[in-house]
Order: sequence, then C-alpha cells, then structure tokens
Amino acid sequence: MTVLLFHSPDDPVELWVGALRENLPDVEIRVSPETGDPAEVDYALVWKPPTGMLAGLPNLKAIFSLAAGIDHILADAERPADLPIVRMADPYLRAMMTEYAVYAVLHYHRDMGDYRIDQANEVWDRRWPLYTPETVVGILGIGAIGADCAAAFRALGFDVHGWSRTPKRLDGVTCHHGPDGLGEMLRQTRYLVCVLPLTEATHGIIGKETLAQLPAGAIVVNIGRGGHVVDDDLLAALDGGHLGGAFLDVFNDEPLPGGHPYWRHPKVMITPHVAGELVPRSCAKAVAANLRRHLAGEPMQNVVDLGRGY
Amino acid sequence: MTVLLFHSPDDPVELWVGALRENLPDVEIRVSPETGDPAEVDYALVWKPPTGMLAGLPNLKAIFSLAAGIDHILADAERPADLPIVRMADPYLRAMMTEYAVYAVLHYHRDMGDYRIDQANEVWDRRWPLYTPETVVGILGIGAIGADCAAAFRALGFDVHGWSRTPKRLDGVTCHHGPDGLGEMLRQTRYLVCVLPLTEATHGIIGKETLAQLPAGAIVVNIGRGGHVVDDDLLAALDGGHLGGAFLDVFNDEPLPGGHPYWRHPKVMITPHVAGELVPRSCAKAVAANLRRHLAGEPMQNVVDLGRGY
Repeated sequence: MTVLLFHSPDDPVELWVGALRENLPDVEIRVSPETGDPAEVDYALVWKPPTGMLAGLPNLKAIFSLAAGIDHILADAERPADLPIVRMADPYLRAMMTEYAVYAVLHYHRDMGDYRIDQANEVWDRRWPLYTPETVVGILGIGAIGADCAAAFRALGFDVHGWSRTPKRLDGVTCHHGPDGLGEMLRQTRYLVCVLPLTEATHGIIGKETLAQLPAGAIVVNIGRGGHVVDDDLLAALDGGHLGGAFLDVFNDEPLPGGHPYWRHPKVMITPHVAGELVPRSCAKAVAANLRRHLAGEPMQNVVDLGRGY
Repeated sequence: MTVLLFHSPDDPVELWVGALRENLPDVEIRVSPETGDPAEVDYALVWKPPTGMLAGLPNLKAIFSLAAGIDHILADAERPADLPIVRMADPYLRAMMTEYAVYAVLHYHRDMGDYRIDQANEVWDRRWPLYTPETVVGILGIGAIGADCAAAFRALGFDVHGWSRTPKRLDGVTCHHGPDGLGEMLRQTRYLVCVLPLTEATHGIIGKETLAQLPAGAIVVNIGRGGHVVDDDLLAALDGGHLGGAFLDVFNDEPLPGGHPYWRHPKVMITPHVAGELVPRSCAKAVAANLRRHLAGEPMQNVVDLGRGY
C-alpha cells in the first residue's frame, strides 16, 4: 500500500488526516513521529521537517510542501536533493492571501486604526480618506498569488502596480521589472504588498534602500516571508516617521520572540503567519490529485524549479 | 447668473466649493449661511438642512442631497414638497461603501479583533478561519450599493445572498425578497450587511426578530442608517452571546452620544458615519452634470420617487 507521511508542528493534524483520507482512500496516511517502517513511506507532506527527517526515508519519491514556499524544506541541509518538491498551489490559498492583503490595505486606507483609538476615547471625528482611483497599491511579486491580489485591488478601484524579477504582463496592472523597475514602482506606491517567494535574490529586499524610495506615509504589508524584511531598517523607517505603518504576518524568527519591538510598536500590526493558512478540506484535493498523477507516471503540477528556488 | 447654495455642517466646505467651481464655472456657488438674496438661489446642495432653510428660498428649482439617502431632507417638515430631490448616486460612493463592507466582514472573518488583543499581550496563537466558499454574506438591500458590495464579496469567494423588498436578480447572488425571503436569508447568514435606504418599511428592521433568525455567532454590519437598528435589541443579542459582533457606522443619534453602551462594548466596532463619505472631486462632477441637464430642460438622473421614499 502507498504510504504518505504527514508532518507539521503547526497545522491542525486531525483536520488534515481526515481530509487526506477522504481524498486518498487507497493511501495509508501516517502522522510523524509515528512513522512506522521508514522504508514504507512513499510520499511526505511536510511543514518545517526537522533536519534529517526526510533523509531517513529511503524510498521517498516526492516531497509535498505544506506551504506555497519551500524555504522551510530547503532549510534541511540533509534533505534528499534529487527528489521533486511540490509547492502547495491550492487556489484557496491565493484567495486567503488576497483577503488578508485587502484587509491590511483597507485598514490603513480607511483610517481604521485611528478610529479604534477614537472609539476607546469616545471621540467622534471624521477623517477624509485618500481618493482610491489615484492611490497606488504596489505588489512585490506577481506570480499566481500576486496576480490574484492585483485583481482584487483593481476591482476595488485602486491604481495597481506590480513588480517581478523578469518582465510580466497583467491585465489592468502597471507592471515593472528588474532593479530599475523596482525604484520606478516604489516612488509611486502608497501601499507596498510583498507576496514574493524567498530566494537569495529577494532576501532583505524590504531594507533601507527600498523603504527610502517609498513616498512619505507609505505602508508596508508583508505576507511573503519574514526574510524579505530587514527588521532594523523597517523599524528605523517607522520610528523616523517616513513610513506610516507596517502590517506583518511573517517574521525572521517565528513565533516572533517575546519582547521584540514589533509587538508593542504603535505603527505595527501583527498576525501569527496566518495570511495564507492552508485549509485542509481545500488543499487535500490538490495533494491527492498530484499524488495520483505521480502514481500513474504522469508529470505532477507545481513542481519547484530548484535552480530558481520557487 | 445661476446660483447654487451649498449647506453642510459636516463636510469639508473648501474642498466642495473648489470642486463645484471647477465643474460649474458659469454657476455662482454660495455657502450657507452666507446666502445673499434668497430669491436668487436656484439650486441647493444640502446635508441636514435646518428646518425652514429650504422653504426660505422662494425660487428654488431642485434640491440635491449630499448623501445617497434623503431622510435628512425629509426630516424638514417645512421643505417645499413639490420640488424634485436628487439623490447622490456617485459611483465612487458605492466604491467606498464596498471598501468599508469588505473591511468589516474580513475583520471578523479573519479574526483580526482577536489578533489585536493577542498582539497587545505578545501572544502568538493561530486561528483557523471559516472556509470562505461556504460562508454566507447576506446583504440587506441590493440596489446600486448592495449590488456593488455583492460583486466584491463574490470576487473574494464568499457565498453571497441578497434581500430586497421586491424580487430582483443579480448575477452570482442568491436573491431573496419580501418578508418570507428575509427569514430564508437570515437563517443562512454569517455576515449580515445592511445597505438599505431608510423608509417606514425598513425602520427598525434589525431588531429582535431579525437577529433571532441569524445563526449563533453571526455578525451585523450596518452602513445603511442608524434607524435600521433597534439598539436595545442589538445590545441584548450581543450580550446574550447569540451575536458574534457588530460593526456600526451609523446610529440613531449622531454623533453617537458620550456614554452610549456601543462606545465601550467589546463586541462593537464604531466609525463616525464615514462608510460612504462623499469625495468632492468625484461628486461635484455628478451634481454638475445633473444641474446642466435641468438648465437645458432635460430630465435629471437619480430623482427620488417620493412615493417610495428613495
């Protein structure tokens, strides 16, 4: 019998196992650390596998990532380097990321933080928001997730720009690319939304130089990876008054350590890496479909190009 | 020379006068109370005109409402009853209402209130949100504003329902109508969004009976008028635990009086009637176009049917 090993320290195990069994009735689902005989494991569906866990499965045929990114797998230096890694590309993940990005931008666009403070003080004080059609949302990363975000912001009437490493075209979105294109977009951006994959090229992209090119009062929304942000630079831009705020879902260290300046910063909104949670009832279908393709000798979808890193 | 009198105790006068002059260079714009000779005033653009103000303009030809609703004009018992009243139907108003409704729903849908409390306590605790495609947003009122909201929620992937007095059809929206249809929608609704006009038929519609038909944990978002809500009933439903929360932009008394239980209620989010603010640079164009139609003897758009009240 085909065996799939599930491993995640952070996801709701029962929901996952139930959804996987429903979609893969002919596959045995095991949950680490109850691995049983490691030689029997054919596939692994993992989030943050401990170093050596994957290397200890001698007959593993493919690794499924429990995230859109795969940095949490690449972090295991001992992982079997020749196995295909499959990104989670569930369309619902995109929908969740988009919900979050829209919420975060509207939070600032409609002065909701200020209204919360006013409410606590019983103050009735109307504010005049920026005119949406003349307000730029700049999206860092316009792959599947970025394109979905872009469409939502466009539907809401924003002036939407997007940036990617290589040239891309998106309907109704002003697209920029490469190092020069980045500055071009940043100079016009009120709301910078990062949905990039984490690679060597994007690590620390939200640092001093990037932040300085944003107009005064701009807002940073990071739902990519914590490694995209240089924390000291972001804090300096917030404290210096150049940035209006930051809405952060991902961090260089997760969970965000107690006492970290982000926790109590009046201009920072924090959530615990939930922008793109994977909903088992939706994702299990995608995993099952790919696993069946592999069993049938067909090419799987969303296999990572390890040269590019995403 | 044609004269337009502007009156609003709540809007940014300079922005309005500037935008009106730009769009109507051949019309004299006066700002109440500097009315000059009342007999010279041809048109009035008003928000909450004081009783008798409109009656004191003997040659008035039409009244433009500085709001989508006209209840603030009908409240003046002395207003000249035979004059046409024009609703503000600026498309941007719809866009703003939709932004607000989307923000309010996502606030609860993505547990953002809980995450704010967690942040204040430096707590990292992930929550598992409801699955959007199986979550119903029920919209009370599916005219122009409701239809725009419905489209946005549909684009985000929600299961969207709408209710109106008379039968309507909206693409991709499950439409209900009349008293029976209301209960039908309420029983399935997680997020109830009210964008109704305030009429005798809709006054107090969000009361005990309506609230009791919502499933436990449902959320009420009111961006219609304060008069739609029976405050004591809403507070009872919140305090009794049946309702999960209420996001309120409009109130029976505005500004909301100091000490009102809404201000400090842990389940209530308040904003000071800003969901559908009128942005002068956008609205002045609509007023100007209608005023020119009237001057040219053509029918104006968005004239209120006083029999229906909206």
